[in-house]
Amino acid sequence: MFIGLDVGGTFLKGARIDGAGRVADRLHQPVAKASPQDMLEQLATAVRTLEAGESVAGVGIGLPGIVDRAASRVRVSPAVPVLDALPVGEEILSRTGLPVFLENDANAAALAEAWLGAGRGAENMLLLTLGTGIGAGLVLGGRVWSGRSGYAGEIGHIQVDPDGVPCPCGSRGCLETVAGAKGWTRAAEAMIAARGSSLKGKDLDQRAIIEAAREGDAVALEVVERAAQALGVGIAAVLDLLNIERVVLAGGVAAAGPFLLDKIVDETRKRTYPQVFADCSFRPAELGGDAGVVGAARVAMAAMDQGRLR
Amino acid sequence: MFIGLDVGGTFLKGARIDGAGRVADRLHQPVAKASPQDMLEQLATAVRTLEAGESVAGVGIGLPGIVDRAASRVRVSPAVPVLDALPVGEEILSRTGLPVFLENDANAAALAEAWLGAGRGAENMLLLTLGTGIGAGLVLGGRVWSGRSGYAGEIGHIQVDPDGVPCPCGSRGCLETVAGAKGWTRAAEAMIAARGSSLKGKDLDQRAIIEAAREGDAVALEVVERAAQALGVGIAAVLDLLNIERVVLAGGVAAAGPFLLDKIVDETRKRTYPQVFADCSFRPAELGGDAGVVGAARVAMAAMDQGRLR
Repeated sequence: MFIGLDVGGTFLKGARIDGAGRVADRLHQPVAKASPQDMLEQLATAVRTLEAGESVAGVGIGLPGIVDRAASRVRVSPAVPVLDALPVGEEILSRTGLPVFLENDANAAALAEAWLGAGRGAENMLLLTLGTGIGAGLVLGGRVWSGRSGYAGEIGHIQVDPDGVPCPCGSRGCLETVAGAKGWTRAAEAMIAARGSSLKGKDLDQRAIIEAAREGDAVALEVVERAAQALGVGIAAVLDLLNIERVVLAGGVAAAGPFLLDKIVDETRKRTYPQVFADCSFRPAELGGDAGVVGAARVAMAAMDQGRLR
Repeated sequence: MFIGLDVGGTFLKGARIDGAGRVADRLHQPVAKASPQDMLEQLATAVRTLEAGESVAGVGIGLPGIVDRAASRVRVSPAVPVLDALPVGEEILSRTGLPVFLENDANAAALAEAWLGAGRGAENMLLLTLGTGIGAGLVLGGRVWSGRSGYAGEIGHIQVDPDGVPCPCGSRGCLETVAGAKGWTRAAEAMIAARGSSLKGKDLDQRAIIEAAREGDAVALEVVERAAQALGVGIAAVLDLLNIERVVLAGGVAAAGPFLLDKIVDETRKRTYPQVFADCSFRPAELGGDAGVVGAARVAMAAMDQGRLR
């Protein structure tokens, strides 16, 4: 058995999982982020709770930030700053006696989808999470590709509009500024002011905009298509560079159904080499809220397998 | 000893190379592209000539097109159409008795730079060849990454200008349409007509434009900066996606010196996560005309090493 923990900005999720990915036990609680000590104590307690007398081989933890896997610590976590520079691996090992392996949360989710979800059968896969931001995890040759410092997968910062608005990353016109939640709202506000729309006076969240577009609102449709085009530029760049065989779309917006997904696939097709597009299949994510904990457990499983082979 | 052959649109180059990459013997001749039979006979004769009584373990061949490595044949070669669908591996094996391994020429050059050139010491490297077109080869974990069908590395078709001109690939505003030779000429012609320039009446090749920019011609400078910006968008996309540690710039334009390269690096910096940019070093290619044959020999070496390990 393995334990997977998934630290989010709001909740800590955890599960005990067997070697086939079956979830035996779950845990879900508000995340303790008042201090590093609170966080570490919560994680250690969660491990002990989920252990529950079973024989657990290792613990994987998915974290919302950049992870230094070799040092088993977090480099930086904008969403949960108490994690910054925290030696999570060492601290949880000393508190629980179990080997601990860390991974970025999007990478862990990608690994879970590759293992048991919409990436099954694909050696190489991009998981794209569409929501407030644009997250991504890349699996190459069946393993998470995290790059030299753990920053790989930042597809949200591909520049899709050279004249676009500044991005907090320091660049401008990044995919996330157009296709992230704020990009949708910004575009909708500007168009409503200029042209009027059934969206006027409503909350301009992504689901509401998709709903209005589906019902024929011209402004909403243009907002959706603008986001789909930007996502098409970014996904096509990944496909033309890597010629991988699977793209999995996750997150709240992706869950809104085929209306947006079909447009994203079509905009990707327009910008991708025909053979490269033909090589790739596009699927909605399958594991939902379990992806993080299942992927975290898989990280521990894979690391320990690799250790045995050495 | 290994033999490396590099089939170009105009010349066939070949060399006999030892396990340390030292070139023992060279061959350079116009490529026989009148018929598939001429091509195969020329390749087999080149192998026999370079073998020259030495003990040769294997042959690597770099080809200008998409290579199906598993089937050891060319899929498609726009530059040398007689190669289309040609089972080069099997045919040269039957004519020479030596094991033959094929690779795309840009990928072979990337492998050579990673082994003995500007990519030394880097596990992960992008080779970008700037010339008439924009070529690229990607080395991940010390091995060529060619993707599912051999199309990986098509960074020239990342869309950098949503309103740009159509590209033969079917998309529009691709990096190659802006930063390839035709993009430079097109931009220079439009600006010269509108504003005048010291370039007026001259051949608008890339080196002449770089030279005029270096001497302060405003139009030439703008053409160079436009190309550098587009390349910055493309390289930054690769870095933010993969967080790799080396970018090597090759080709005639890159050989024109630091004036252009410095601008490309600066435009990349503006669009890349600071840590990801800091993780990467940028270098001009070192192997020049030998990269193709050395890389082809290395392909054979690596494939046979891998075979032994199985």
